[in-house]
Amino acid sequence: MITQIVLGIDIGGTNADFAFIDREGIILYKANLPSDEYNTANSFVQLVKRMAEEAMTKLKKQLVIRGIGIGAPNGNYYRGTIEFAPNMRWEGIIPLAEYFRMAFGVPSFLTNDANAAAIGERMFGNAKNVDDFIMITLGTGLGSGIVSNGRLIYGHDGFAGELGHVIVKENGRKCGCGRRGCLETYASVTGLKRTVVKLLKTGEFTSELEGLNFNQLSGKMVEKAALNGDELALEAFAKTGKVLGKAMANAVAFSSPKLIVFFGGLAQAGELIIKPTKYEMEKSMLRIYQNKIPIIASGLKGNEAALLGAAALAWKELGIV
Amino acid sequence: MITQIVLGIDIGGTNADFAFIDREGIILYKANLPSDEYNTANSFVQLVKRMAEEAMTKLKKQLVIRGIGIGAPNGNYYRGTIEFAPNMRWEGIIPLAEYFRMAFGVPSFLTNDANAAAIGERMFGNAKNVDDFIMITLGTGLGSGIVSNGRLIYGHDGFAGELGHVIVKENGRKCGCGRRGCLETYASVTGLKRTVVKLLKTGEFTSELEGLNFNQLSGKMVEKAALNGDELALEAFAKTGKVLGKAMANAVAFSSPKLIVFFGGLAQAGELIIKPTKYEMEKSMLRIYQNKIPIIASGLKGNEAALLGAAALAWKELGIV
Repeated sequence: MITQIVLGIDIGGTNADFAFIDREGIILYKANLPSDEYNTANSFVQLVKRMAEEAMTKLKKQLVIRGIGIGAPNGNYYRGTIEFAPNMRWEGIIPLAEYFRMAFGVPSFLTNDANAAAIGERMFGNAKNVDDFIMITLGTGLGSGIVSNGRLIYGHDGFAGELGHVIVKENGRKCGCGRRGCLETYASVTGLKRTVVKLLKTGEFTSELEGLNFNQLSGKMVEKAALNGDELALEAFAKTGKVLGKAMANAVAFSSPKLIVFFGGLAQAGELIIKPTKYEMEKSMLRIYQNKIPIIASGLKGNEAALLGAAALAWKELGIV
Repeated sequence: MITQIVLGIDIGGTNADFAFIDREGIILYKANLPSDEYNTANSFVQLVKRMAEEAMTKLKKQLVIRGIGIGAPNGNYYRGTIEFAPNMRWEGIIPLAEYFRMAFGVPSFLTNDANAAAIGERMFGNAKNVDDFIMITLGTGLGSGIVSNGRLIYGHDGFAGELGHVIVKENGRKCGCGRRGCLETYASVTGLKRTVVKLLKTGEFTSELEGLNFNQLSGKMVEKAALNGDELALEAFAKTGKVLGKAMANAVAFSSPKLIVFFGGLAQAGELIIKPTKYEMEKSMLRIYQNKIPIIASGLKGNEAALLGAAALAWKELGIV
């Protein structure tokens, strides 16, 4: 029996995952390869091809690759390109979807990682059949994928959904984008760590995180401290949720979603981040929106969500699911 | 020859317009009636019916009403209702589309006034064939209609696009919605007047507007003063544009529109409001958005835009255009 699959690819700054994924979202094979050792994107594509071919011969099933879906930082859906990704070795504009199409001879689609996560959540996660929701990825930065009328909002140029760069505080924290006060400088793993460092400096708290600097801290450490009842860590989550909740209230006024889904490192802290965010969001919203928009954690496993999202993009674009 | 028309209806707090409008957006007949003298919405509908029937017998053309489109404050598209409109005599939830459908026996559709303006702009105005744009109505308040992927964003409950109630300043100006710092308390005719009053109080300007209080001021007076080079009036427009520009930059990060269209009383001031808004917007945006999103004034005549929008809604929903 022939099994139809797509190749789902999740590209990060240093590593990439790829997987064979069927129409039900079952991962039949998964592999990891570095994305920073190769001088050209094309040689990366060739390596994926060799690895995929080897895997196909080893697997007992008869597989047919129908298409390829790629999630990548600064990915542009319309052009199938990665454009000026700050943390990647490949500089400038990389027509990656085209490279994959040429290498494998099948339709290839690309979008940014947060959009891929939103598509994956809608197809395989906690937003099944939800036509209006907002996906927020809380990792090193803050990404967003906004689904409205059952479709992802790409905007006229493919760059919609950059909620991480909504300015929430005038002359606020310096952002990697060159501006100040962007949402992601407060609401992300990085933002949480910055808040912890700031709170440590006040000397107002005794905390198990004392003595650690920004680079020594991790989101997981702050989460663990908070779960131990550490006041400073709890205050850091409360402050992060406050900023994020206000931003979510404004986002709701834009697209009136049925649901908000949090995903990524900071989202794994669950209620520690969701509770203060939800509280502030409810407080900040117009009455017509109140008490009807849940914030929930993603239904996709951390290391598989991006892959499933990329695969979902391919299945969706192929018109098969 | 039979001419197919729709009935376009624009309902305000004190007055309503209705018109016969053909598929090209030509207004064949237009009338005005009060919307606040009637005890029930149903009696209003009956009056529209009598007036429409009289007009149809008087007109020489043979007209067929195919459908009805209604733009109304606090209009809910999904339910065809006006819900808790603060400035209207009809209280609670009014199923107005259903009343019109029963009275005329044709499909009837309702949406809020800003959404209607967006649909009208896309069908008959300056956003023809634009799939991604944001319509901002700058009147007593600030309304918005957001078009993405060629479709209006209604959200899961029909209440999307309330950009007037995005909070732009913590503990800012008191808003009619009961909260503080909403965009429309700064960026609207009312907001402009509030800014003028505040600037007058500083005593830092000599101005032809001196001595006038909030109720004596009008948007037109501030516009006229600004055109005369009045420093205070110009400063008021600059301040208004600054707040509005920042808010537009955040809106762009959401939906990445090809175009932003301003409509309504304040928009009639043209470059006086567009120029400072555009300046601040460009300054506040991510680089990927810069220098490609024009802000333009509506292509629809002030008193006809809402009617054309309501008519466009009907034609669109009927699937005829």
